[in-house]
Amino acid sequence: MAGCCLEFWFEFASSYSYPAALRIEQLARSAGVRVLWRPFLLGPLFQAQGYASSPFVQFPAKGRYMWRDIERICARTGIPFRKPSAFPRTSVLGARIACAFQDEPWVPRFVCALFTANFAHDRDIGDDRVVADCLTACGESAPARIAAVQTDPLKSRLRTQTERAAALGLFGAPSFLVDGELFWGNDRLEDALAWARGEHPLQR
Amino acid sequence: MAGCCLEFWFEFASSYSYPAALRIEQLARSAGVRVLWRPFLLGPLFQAQGYASSPFVQFPAKGRYMWRDIERICARTGIPFRKPSAFPRTSVLGARIACAFQDEPWVPRFVCALFTANFAHDRDIGDDRVVADCLTACGESAPARIAAVQTDPLKSRLRTQTERAAALGLFGAPSFLVDGELFWGNDRLEDALAWARGEHPLQR
Repeated sequence: MAGCCLEFWFEFASSYSYPAALRIEQLARSAGVRVLWRPFLLGPLFQAQGYASSPFVQFPAKGRYMWRDIERICARTGIPFRKPSAFPRTSVLGARIACAFQDEPWVPRFVCALFTANFAHDRDIGDDRVVADCLTACGESAPARIAAVQTDPLKSRLRTQTERAAALGLFGAPSFLVDGELFWGNDRLEDALAWARGEHPLQR
Repeated sequence: MAGCCLEFWFEFASSYSYPAALRIEQLARSAGVRVLWRPFLLGPLFQAQGYASSPFVQFPAKGRYMWRDIERICARTGIPFRKPSAFPRTSVLGARIACAFQDEPWVPRFVCALFTANFAHDRDIGDDRVVADCLTACGESAPARIAAVQTDPLKSRLRTQTERAAALGLFGAPSFLVDGELFWGNDRLEDALAWARGEHPLQR
């Protein structure tokens, strides 16, 4: 099957990345599609587009709507949700770790744990201790993983990956990339998986 | 059944309003939900939010993505599509007519004809003759309908309705409103219909 790999581009501060992260493994497994987890930072992409902040902060009506939409999505898909008391949260340390080790088997669990800390438990994922807790919960050595991304070459991988995201034409998160075909938004995950299976009418 | 009415808020210049308009009647009929067609103008809402133009014009990466996404959606749902050579197009005359007569039975056909002119036949819907052609195709008298919205009280209904859209918290199109619950985007049409049927987990 052509293109049975899907790149999942996400940002820990991004509200719609949360249900995507929690849904993707089961859906991809059912579809027979391999997922490549690709964390990046939205901030530089937003700045390059001229946004002063998250569009959900800059445009309050859109922000109010987004939280209700997330609540509905989580209720419908059985994902726990509590509106974070701060938004968007700093996500650099977690993203550096997820990026530095992105193809290791424990990373999906770490990613889901950190997303859940932010969007279900209202914990500050910008706090090293919260990141450490999520690493520990995955059976990883928190001090070792955190220390590893304090210096290059691992530290700068996130910046390089964020630059690649911009070069690929990404402008938001979550995004899914299949054979150069871009899908944006949690609500496009099923479409992206269908594309990875070659099942979209435009592919026939 | 509580709330089995759905307000469909749309703008003729809006790309994602197009598949929503062409899909809604059949889906709503199957769901047993009555649709209230509610045209409005996005321009004043975008201006109030601080956008200089359509977000798809202001943010080019998002605009490029949108056209491909629309192409995929139309292909998947069997809706004809040709990328308009101008975007966004002036939509005031068509919107004034659709608004002035919004609850008359010919309006859904007129709305779909005008959307199709813009997004499948690349016709300038800002041109009175294109609007007239769509009225004629619906069996309506084009001169009479066009003349009717040149003066008050019918002319100003669109402005009043656009102000109501802003007051309701709308910020984009298409939007669906069910018992005060807001859904934004063509991809939320099915969710809005489920809500109108009282089938969402948050309603139980």
